[in-house]
Amino acid sequence: MKIITFGEVMLRLSPPDVERFAQTDTLSMHFGGTEANVAVSLAQFGMQVAHVTRFPDHALGRAAAGYLRKYDVDTQYIGYGDGRLGLYFLETGAGSRASQIIYDRADSAFSRILPDEIDWETILKGASWFHWTGITPALSQGAADCLLVGIQTANRLGVPVSGDIVYRSNLWKYGRTPQEIMPALTEGCTLVLGSKGLFSELYDVVGSTFQESGRALMKRFPNVRYITDTKRNSVSASHNQLSAKLFDGQNVYKSRLYDIRPITDRIGTGDAYIAGLIYGLLTFNDLQRAVEFGAAASVLKHTIPGDVNLTTVAEVDTVANGDSSGKLRR
Amino acid sequence: MKIITFGEVMLRLSPPDVERFAQTDTLSMHFGGTEANVAVSLAQFGMQVAHVTRFPDHALGRAAAGYLRKYDVDTQYIGYGDGRLGLYFLETGAGSRASQIIYDRADSAFSRILPDEIDWETILKGASWFHWTGITPALSQGAADCLLVGIQTANRLGVPVSGDIVYRSNLWKYGRTPQEIMPALTEGCTLVLGSKGLFSELYDVVGSTFQESGRALMKRFPNVRYITDTKRNSVSASHNQLSAKLFDGQNVYKSRLYDIRPITDRIGTGDAYIAGLIYGLLTFNDLQRAVEFGAAASVLKHTIPGDVNLTTVAEVDTVANGDSSGKLRR
Amino acid sequence: MKIITFGEVMLRLSPPDVERFAQTDTLSMHFGGTEANVAVSLAQFGMQVAHVTRFPDHALGRAAAGYLRKYDVDTQYIGYGDGRLGLYFLETGAGSRASQIIYDRADSAFSRILPDEIDWETILKGASWFHWTGITPALSQGAADCLLVGIQTANRLGVPVSGDIVYRSNLWKYGRTPQEIMPALTEGCTLVLGSKGLFSELYDVVGSTFQESGRALMKRFPNVRYITDTKRNSVSASHNQLSAKLFDGQNVYKSRLYDIRPITDRIGTGDAYIAGLIYGLLTFNDLQRAVEFGAAASVLKHTIPGDVNLTTVAEVDTVANGDSSGKLRR
Amino acid sequence: MKIITFGEVMLRLSPPDVERFAQTDTLSMHFGGTEANVAVSLAQFGMQVAHVTRFPDHALGRAAAGYLRKYDVDTQYIGYGDGRLGLYFLETGAGSRASQIIYDRADSAFSRILPDEIDWETILKGASWFHWTGITPALSQGAADCLLVGIQTANRLGVPVSGDIVYRSNLWKYGRTPQEIMPALTEGCTLVLGSKGLFSELYDVVGSTFQESGRALMKRFPNVRYITDTKRNSVSASHNQLSAKLFDGQNVYKSRLYDIRPITDRIGTGDAYIAGLIYGLLTFNDLQRAVEFGAAASVLKHTIPGDVNLTTVAEVDTVANGDSSGKLRR
Amino acid sequence: MKIITFGEVMLRLSPPDVERFAQTDTLSMHFGGTEANVAVSLAQFGMQVAHVTRFPDHALGRAAAGYLRKYDVDTQYIGYGDGRLGLYFLETGAGSRASQIIYDRADSAFSRILPDEIDWETILKGASWFHWTGITPALSQGAADCLLVGIQTANRLGVPVSGDIVYRSNLWKYGRTPQEIMPALTEGCTLVLGSKGLFSELYDVVGSTFQESGRALMKRFPNVRYITDTKRNSVSASHNQLSAKLFDGQNVYKSRLYDIRPITDRIGTGDAYIAGLIYGLLTFNDLQRAVEFGAAASVLKHTIPGDVNLTTVAEVDTVANGDSSGKLRR
Amino acid sequence: MKIITFGEVMLRLSPPDVERFAQTDTLSMHFGGTEANVAVSLAQFGMQVAHVTRFPDHALGRAAAGYLRKYDVDTQYIGYGDGRLGLYFLETGAGSRASQIIYDRADSAFSRILPDEIDWETILKGASWFHWTGITPALSQGAADCLLVGIQTANRLGVPVSGDIVYRSNLWKYGRTPQEIMPALTEGCTLVLGSKGLFSELYDVVGSTFQESGRALMKRFPNVRYITDTKRNSVSASHNQLSAKLFDGQNVYKSRLYDIRPITDRIGTGDAYIAGLIYGLLTFNDLQRAVEFGAAASVLKHTIPGDVNLTTVAEVDTVANGDSSGKLRR
Repeated sequence: MKIITFGEVMLRLSPPDVERFAQTDTLSMHFGGTEANVAVSLAQFGMQVAHVTRFPDHALGRAAAGYLRKYDVDTQYIGYGDGRLGLYFLETGAGSRASQIIYDRADSAFSRILPDEIDWETILKGASWFHWTGITPALSQGAADCLLVGIQTANRLGVPVSGDIVYRSNLWKYGRTPQEIMPALTEGCTLVLGSKGLFSELYDVVGSTFQESGRALMKRFPNVRYITDTKRNSVSASHNQLSAKLFDGQNVYKSRLYDIRPITDRIGTGDAYIAGLIYGLLTFNDLQRAVEFGAAASVLKHTIPGDVNLTTVAEVDTVANGDSSGKLRR
Repeated sequence: MKIITFGEVMLRLSPPDVERFAQTDTLSMHFGGTEANVAVSLAQFGMQVAHVTRFPDHALGRAAAGYLRKYDVDTQYIGYGDGRLGLYFLETGAGSRASQIIYDRADSAFSRILPDEIDWETILKGASWFHWTGITPALSQGAADCLLVGIQTANRLGVPVSGDIVYRSNLWKYGRTPQEIMPALTEGCTLVLGSKGLFSELYDVVGSTFQESGRALMKRFPNVRYITDTKRNSVSASHNQLSAKLFDGQNVYKSRLYDIRPITDRIGTGDAYIAGLIYGLLTFNDLQRAVEFGAAASVLKHTIPGDVNLTTVAEVDTVANGDSSGKLRR
Repeated sequence: MKIITFGEVMLRLSPPDVERFAQTDTLSMHFGGTEANVAVSLAQFGMQVAHVTRFPDHALGRAAAGYLRKYDVDTQYIGYGDGRLGLYFLETGAGSRASQIIYDRADSAFSRILPDEIDWETILKGASWFHWTGITPALSQGAADCLLVGIQTANRLGVPVSGDIVYRSNLWKYGRTPQEIMPALTEGCTLVLGSKGLFSELYDVVGSTFQESGRALMKRFPNVRYITDTKRNSVSASHNQLSAKLFDGQNVYKSRLYDIRPITDRIGTGDAYIAGLIYGLLTFNDLQRAVEFGAAASVLKHTIPGDVNLTTVAEVDTVANGDSSGKLRR
Repeated sequence: MKIITFGEVMLRLSPPDVERFAQTDTLSMHFGGTEANVAVSLAQFGMQVAHVTRFPDHALGRAAAGYLRKYDVDTQYIGYGDGRLGLYFLETGAGSRASQIIYDRADSAFSRILPDEIDWETILKGASWFHWTGITPALSQGAADCLLVGIQTANRLGVPVSGDIVYRSNLWKYGRTPQEIMPALTEGCTLVLGSKGLFSELYDVVGSTFQESGRALMKRFPNVRYITDTKRNSVSASHNQLSAKLFDGQNVYKSRLYDIRPITDRIGTGDAYIAGLIYGLLTFNDLQRAVEFGAAASVLKHTIPGDVNLTTVAEVDTVANGDSSGKLRR
Repeated sequence: MKIITFGEVMLRLSPPDVERFAQTDTLSMHFGGTEANVAVSLAQFGMQVAHVTRFPDHALGRAAAGYLRKYDVDTQYIGYGDGRLGLYFLETGAGSRASQIIYDRADSAFSRILPDEIDWETILKGASWFHWTGITPALSQGAADCLLVGIQTANRLGVPVSGDIVYRSNLWKYGRTPQEIMPALTEGCTLVLGSKGLFSELYDVVGSTFQESGRALMKRFPNVRYITDTKRNSVSASHNQLSAKLFDGQNVYKSRLYDIRPITDRIGTGDAYIAGLIYGLLTFNDLQRAVEFGAAASVLKHTIPGDVNLTTVAEVDTVANGDSSGKLRR
Repeated sequence: MKIITFGEVMLRLSPPDVERFAQTDTLSMHFGGTEANVAVSLAQFGMQVAHVTRFPDHALGRAAAGYLRKYDVDTQYIGYGDGRLGLYFLETGAGSRASQIIYDRADSAFSRILPDEIDWETILKGASWFHWTGITPALSQGAADCLLVGIQTANRLGVPVSGDIVYRSNLWKYGRTPQEIMPALTEGCTLVLGSKGLFSELYDVVGSTFQESGRALMKRFPNVRYITDTKRNSVSASHNQLSAKLFDGQNVYKSRLYDIRPITDRIGTGDAYIAGLIYGLLTFNDLQRAVEFGAAASVLKHTIPGDVNLTTVAEVDTVANGDSSGKLRR
């Protein structure tokens, strides 16, 4: 099964261990971006995945593509052009000290993408899934336009679409609001990841519970078959609790509540969830198992340095089946 | 506001992570000393701080000064001369294994300091606070004498003085006892950090509670307006509990009890407390808030590698206000 | 007191921190092997220990011997010859993610050992203890034969023998079964480490409790005076609970139940237990104290990177006496 | 243009900088193998390259494939199965101290390959080049057989074949001699890399000069159109001189003589030459330029850590055109 | 003596040793910028130096200021505001492989500087020297304007001014040409660093020799008293030859020709020269000695990692006096 | 053959690569001391060597002994007591920048040694050689006294003695001069390493050539049979030239002149020479071969990080036989 993801990939730079920016003099390199994180995760599960993005045409842009390929993501549809490589600096917290991110992604090569640079028809033909997030339309008109064509093409070709409608208010700077842009994108979705707060803010769709709000969203966007969300309780930067739920218009399927400690790397744990859920939806005939698989994938991601979830189906299954004992495997 | 601190700064050498001395072949370098730790912490809070000390006149002595400057401490009053750079070797423990320190500070350039090397008049003019600890008078007669002149000058110029009267029996080797030396130094203090046990041992001042003992101390040393102490419960090397209290002659102000885990670096957490408290006393008109700020500063220090507390007022306020969730800040 | 251990030593290669094999590009080197781990641990306790093994005659084989010498193990009886250096790759887990080992030890120089290469008479003369494990006879006929001669020599010279009868089914590949080989080896033991499940599987000795099964084993092998075992509850890869017990034919001596978190390195914690127990049996006249010392040694090992337990008697005593507070030692 | 390479890929482990095995406790990981090195190099030149090999089916085998993919080599034809991952340990020398290698590749997954595991027909269809070396037939009968089928398939499909007939006497251990095996493999070659000494030893083909010996080889193997070799003068481990020559049956084309210092990593410099030459033969219509491009590629490889030559066509062209000034490019 | 420098400071990120961007996963952090490099160098020579710049108001901007302070540069005049921290990625070459830089400095906080943000009057009062380079006016109109006010203020206050008129064509992107902007800036200079090629390109001032061209420049800009330049011969990225010359309107003073190998870090070697020359002009009454000191400073910089020249006057004097033996100092 | 060496061992701390003290924040650990360096070198040549010294009784003192044991030096005669571990900080230079050392060895545990702590009789019985240097008597009266007893015991037992009479004026601080102390020590020597300048300064023995001066020394100290010295030409910190000579009272045997570049670590290269020479004198019946072996050993040491020469006899022989090509060994 071939899966397509679309979005910006940034170079992530972080001090070793829990050092602060003020004291470090080396930085670890990883690459990541919410959609590419989903791609890598699905590739580890054995799916064929291609990520679509645009990099600057220099050694670091090439290195970013190499990073994706290393983790088995197909990079043949990646374009190269002008603009810079988006970056973010991550300082990892511990205990009561929060992790913090300094973004430096303005004017990236990806944000300069234009709709006609991507041949969606070729890319999506024969695909089994297409995934996008609310980061992309926030970056530039070109990215939003390009994404819309992608979703419409997927719809036309019958490819299921998932949208993580994450909203970051400090991104939307090119003159449009998410309220103007997001509805048309959401319309083409089969699966939506978001909270009732977001549904209300972005689409003016209200409901007093996850279920009610979900039903209202499905009414507004009739293509949507699944709505999902995770719930996180931050005890400290080193200790979180997590659960997930999935609504199919009828029932709410809830995962176990996971106690996560210690936390090695919190970045990309939401992406690991959606990747696990997509894998579950495509593979299992069992919504309960799918949401549990997604939650377990997310739990495991907390133990892995970097943005991407380097775990196998067998590893996720172990946790999804209730074994979090971490017993040595020889 | 200009703050002056005085004391030895040592080179700290520690194996990476939790390696033991027996197995490491690299050492991380930090610089620290209880008074300079207070200086750096206050500088991060935005105060103007100058640290007074004496270094050997070689590349490592210069590097030590550079370390302080990097963290915004004024080094213009530092002297350079003969003697070595004091060192300590720190092995960081975990769980049931204790951290351990091997001191190698004998005959340091600082211990050779003489009173006439420091122009206290110039340094303390216009200062808002002067901080010292019981380590300094333990090192040599010269250091004790020099400190005494400093405290007396501060008193004459109306600069408030804080003394952390920490007592390490294995330091006092130059022929005098703390009982002979400490009272004259304590007399000039506005704020004293110490326990009732210490008050009894050093000054023969007794009281059955923190409050009673504090009152007795204030009677003996009428300049003292505040007495403070912290209480630590060591569950393991990776898990501590901490609280602080402050007595102003009338009321005892107690901080919240903090649960600290995991612990990245326990060194300097007491210094972080006194820095936070001094900041609070100078900035807030609220003793309860000051002691809470101090305790929260100490809690955060446990998450930071090195001796010094690299946290901002905003970060401390978050924890002092009861939010230890460590949620990612973007 | 001179102690002799016998068995393979492997080069252990592991990614830094909790990185996965898929993402690392450096590996930390340690050397270890269950019997040599016991040797190093005993050497740290101040015992004279010589380890007997066979290495390839090249720079890495020499480095392995250097590793043992560094930790005060006598390497004069080590032979050098053909074959490769056995390796294992260790990926350290965290939380719900298990650590995993990829063994690469086939056809090692040790597995090619032959009985006549070892002069057991000289080596064991005047020794106070001889230790072996069930890994050795699983590797090759030569290793099994060589071990048998060693045990028989020890018996003849009156040297007490301990056997950790660990059984790894994927090792026994040279055509013999443990049921054929192990009984003759066990016969010469004074102390056996194993569970009732193992006793049943290897010797067809059954009993419904540790005590009953132990009694049956002693009946079958009349030389055996002590039977011991540990019990581990894996809450997660970062949090375990551990206790130990010792049976002397009459009473069962149980250690405290230890709560271990965080876990730095789980490898070799069983070996640390047996080393502590042997030390206790040879030094204390108190079986309860011996088993407690062994358990505390094992607990401390969890905090130390590498296979070997670099702790002193004083450190183990602190924990064995109930102080797991990990308070800083200056 | 699609190029196919075939051969074992090993994990290379080396101490940092010029540390000796005896003193290091970390190892850097690279992956390499003479044929895969050619593949990576060609991929950096923009060619489409697929490498055919066989890895153990575990995390390290997968990581090896990830390494190739990162550098843009197609890994779809790689098989996974039993056997271990071949390793080699490299200690890098300097000045008068030689680098040294400890091989640990016996019984690798690759050496267990069998002819029917590889679908040469599919792999080679439409290919522009096939490359092999004398390492492969030295490893096992299966590897030799599999290679022979590959060469014959290439011949049938009209795909040019290059063979680096390197001979390592300590490899041939499965009962056959290179004199028995190599001729049939060489028969299918278009391009042969080797010296007149080797031609004499392997094929009993003699000639007093490179040219004469080349002519004799072409007579014996009429398919061979090009013969090439490099000449290296080792002044020290940090300073070498290198040149290359190519014979087309009529003329000998010689490269410039390059002075190489300092040397960062000498491994894979021969593979870089052959990759450069293949690129030149496929791309330029100029044998002189092709041999110069190959030599310049080899020169540049000496500056790059690891086995593989991470240089672009533009970088090689700069050196091939006589500019070795290493001037900063902004 | 107080010296003022003005210009952008960037975060420099570079792979360890001579690794390529494509293969690294850690980056070393340094900070640098041509004018700040001069500042740090002068501070090491014992001068009082303040650097004027503008940083983003976040942890990395603060860290950049800390870096300057560590090396004894006064940071009190640094402003904080919007915009990003300029970066550059440096890959260090070796032998025939060139180092390469990927700049990522567009839209930095510095480029957004406006003239009224800097109180030149206060900053330059009592200063002994002011230094700028041609990078600053290339970045933005605001930076060019701000610099012009600085130079004019220096002229009014009688502070000597040096300008390194370096020209990078790919910087000038805000709509003005260097020919429009540079003359007014150069007019205020006492010392100009540049070649006759540059003089011709920027000011249309021609002369067939360094001397003639210098005379013509002095005619055009009567304030200019000294013209200087360096000459570099790149044998390879690891081996350069360097000399410098200074013209005072009458005589040309030439330094020795230095043979530099190996080269650790070539960045900032020109800045080290100008810093050495400024030091010489301010300290020695001897132009020959000044130019020799500058050249020797530059030579030493090639041995030091990072952008800045961490050498003392004594070290530079040793080399300037002809001793490049590098003999161990105890 | 059993060899005994005697002297202080220090912890050496050095920044990575060629970083300066001012910029580093990690230090590499090695241990070294001129006599122990000789010991390690001889142990690598396969000799049985025991080093006699005195360490502080803490984890770092134990680690120092472990370091020696790792490299096969017998540590059974090492004493533990009060005092600190001597240290030295080494900054490695390059090109025209000199390496520099900051010593921090005052009041070490070794300098507190007393003659009655060492049982020379037992230690030297059956020994084949005893080696000391002029560093030891410079440290303290106790060390000088202890050494004198050692030399006299060696003389009584017929053990040959070598003395490297190195003189460091800044060490002799306990009230005696080398002129008072050294003659009695030199009297017991069989082999003396020193220059004619030293002979004149220490013993008032003069001669216009190495030979003449040697003859005069032999006259003054009739036990001396061999005099040796090395000659070094420092082209730069990265490039030296070296040769050695040996005088037996009749002939002068000179080694080849070696060109050494690059230099990885210059420390301990003199000790490597004397170790090589001692090995040669004990093993070969050929003085020319002995001095050549010593010189080649010294040359190789320049390529090895740390104080000690980790090379084998075979490696030294290769260079001593004229092959400095550094060709890869597989």
